[in-house]
Amino acid sequence: MIEGLHERLSDTIRAALPQTHSQPELDTFYALMRDYPERGGKQLRGVFVLLSCLMHGGKLEDALSVAAALELFQNWVLVHDDIEDDSDERRGQPTLHKLAGMPVALNVGDALHVYMWRTLFGAQVRREQVLNEFTEMILRTAEGQHLDLSWVQAGRFNITEADYLRMVTLKTAHYTVASPLRLGALCADLTPAESYSEAGKRLGVAFQIRDDVLNLLPASAQAGYGKEFAGDLYEGKRTLILAHLFAEASAAEKAHFKAILSKPRQAKTEADIMTLLNAIRAKGSLDYAQAVAEANAKRGLALLDKATHVLPEQSAVRELSGLLETLAERRV
Amino acid sequence: MIEGLHERLSDTIRAALPQTHSQPELDTFYALMRDYPERGGKQLRGVFVLLSCLMHGGKLEDALSVAAALELFQNWVLVHDDIEDDSDERRGQPTLHKLAGMPVALNVGDALHVYMWRTLFGAQVRREQVLNEFTEMILRTAEGQHLDLSWVQAGRFNITEADYLRMVTLKTAHYTVASPLRLGALCADLTPAESYSEAGKRLGVAFQIRDDVLNLLPASAQAGYGKEFAGDLYEGKRTLILAHLFAEASAAEKAHFKAILSKPRQAKTEADIMTLLNAIRAKGSLDYAQAVAEANAKRGLALLDKATHVLPEQSAVRELSGLLETLAERRV
Repeated sequence: MIEGLHERLSDTIRAALPQTHSQPELDTFYALMRDYPERGGKQLRGVFVLLSCLMHGGKLEDALSVAAALELFQNWVLVHDDIEDDSDERRGQPTLHKLAGMPVALNVGDALHVYMWRTLFGAQVRREQVLNEFTEMILRTAEGQHLDLSWVQAGRFNITEADYLRMVTLKTAHYTVASPLRLGALCADLTPAESYSEAGKRLGVAFQIRDDVLNLLPASAQAGYGKEFAGDLYEGKRTLILAHLFAEASAAEKAHFKAILSKPRQAKTEADIMTLLNAIRAKGSLDYAQAVAEANAKRGLALLDKATHVLPEQSAVRELSGLLETLAERRV
Repeated sequence: MIEGLHERLSDTIRAALPQTHSQPELDTFYALMRDYPERGGKQLRGVFVLLSCLMHGGKLEDALSVAAALELFQNWVLVHDDIEDDSDERRGQPTLHKLAGMPVALNVGDALHVYMWRTLFGAQVRREQVLNEFTEMILRTAEGQHLDLSWVQAGRFNITEADYLRMVTLKTAHYTVASPLRLGALCADLTPAESYSEAGKRLGVAFQIRDDVLNLLPASAQAGYGKEFAGDLYEGKRTLILAHLFAEASAAEKAHFKAILSKPRQAKTEADIMTLLNAIRAKGSLDYAQAVAEANAKRGLALLDKATHVLPEQSAVRELSGLLETLAERRV
């Protein structure tokens, strides 16, 4: 690992956020803004920006504020997503709205959103293009989120594979891989390779599917995957696994699965979850999703390789590809 | 009235927002984003920006995107505020989260927030200063909102006049008058007069207090004020009127008022509200608040007059001052 990337990124994020205020309520407000950023996530997306800039021959300094802004994006989106999904935990601690109340947390997310833009305004290289990339990235993410939320609201579980892929491409793949690759090139004062969009989408989709698969592998829980085993089923999260399950199920089975998945989280019994897990196993839905993830990862890595093997800094290329490969194909 | 300001502003806002999408769910998402902007508010803040630009000798075209962005700010903040306060109605119709569900509405507000920035990036004159003004304006508004929300959460009604003025200056006065005055000058490629901040704060505070007074005058309801009579008391909103009432009340009275105000909206009876209204009358709290509003309006208008009487376009000065005066002192 190229040394010091995480530290530099963390320092930049810390410097971008307000620290103290003489009025106690506003001091609390500032502390709430720093809460998620200080919980120490993996900062994957910020590191992708930094590595992409380096592999294009750019300077770390020219990418730091953009990378920090992307991490701030991730953090305010998580604060708002946790409210939208009424999630209980984030990074092993209670979600912000469980700690501070929904109204306060919503407003904290809005303020973080503004700090994200303020940080981005500090970008020095190709700033217009960077601002445009962020604008489009956030709007696509919000559109993906809307698709997901509108299915939740309609109680719709019977989504097709195409529905799922469209949603997850918008909601996750853009900001997780495609935009970081492009932003890094811009920070190095270069026009991003056209294939980064497709490569990023493929790899982002692979990540998300792989994450959903890991959630249903009992071994993951013991191997430091960090999320509750089968939590996605308790939450009724729309995944490719469920899309496959519903595509393969009889009408009676669909009705049964839907009845279980529609129950509030607390009302779901262990037997309910076992019913779903057994059906998922019987239909081969987990293996199917795994295969789709692998195919997307393979295609994404090939596209990336083709675009990056000519770049000046091959050590950064290797580091970024390795990271992407590990994540897209991670085994427990 | 200088002709066509509202139309030009509405056209700019409409052009800034997405219209249609081939995917039905996203077409709905776009329609939800246009909902509040199309409900036809008074667009006061946007008009203030336009008039301020004109009075400084600037061109309308140079202020339109900034004025539209300020209206988009107002709209996304209202979507989120309505969630935070769980309000039922906005501009005579159900609030967005009552129509579309809280998670969907929250996400719509986030997308509108991004469209606000995108619109602002189209500003042509002194863009760096305009971006900085927006950043600071939104952060101060969020801080004011945090003060208000944290008092709600703590069940605190016993706030001092100084507390109230600090909160409402942050939450309302900046973005309602101070920033529009300053933004208009920037759009005319001029450095804003220093006194605009103080003038804007005074006038913004006067507006808000006057709005709170109108809410408790029975005649307002008949005179097209547009909000439910005593709705603020049903909602338990912190106002200068309440601050005065609590300052003048005995310990026993305070406990009684707090017990009433702390009840959920639906649990408050007409007799409860009459108890509060009678006490407000007996303590002279309404007259006191009215006097504070008038003193602030007078001071704000005097400061504004001093700074603007030398400006090139006196017709715009008169129009803006007249509008501010009417609003700060509006009688029913």
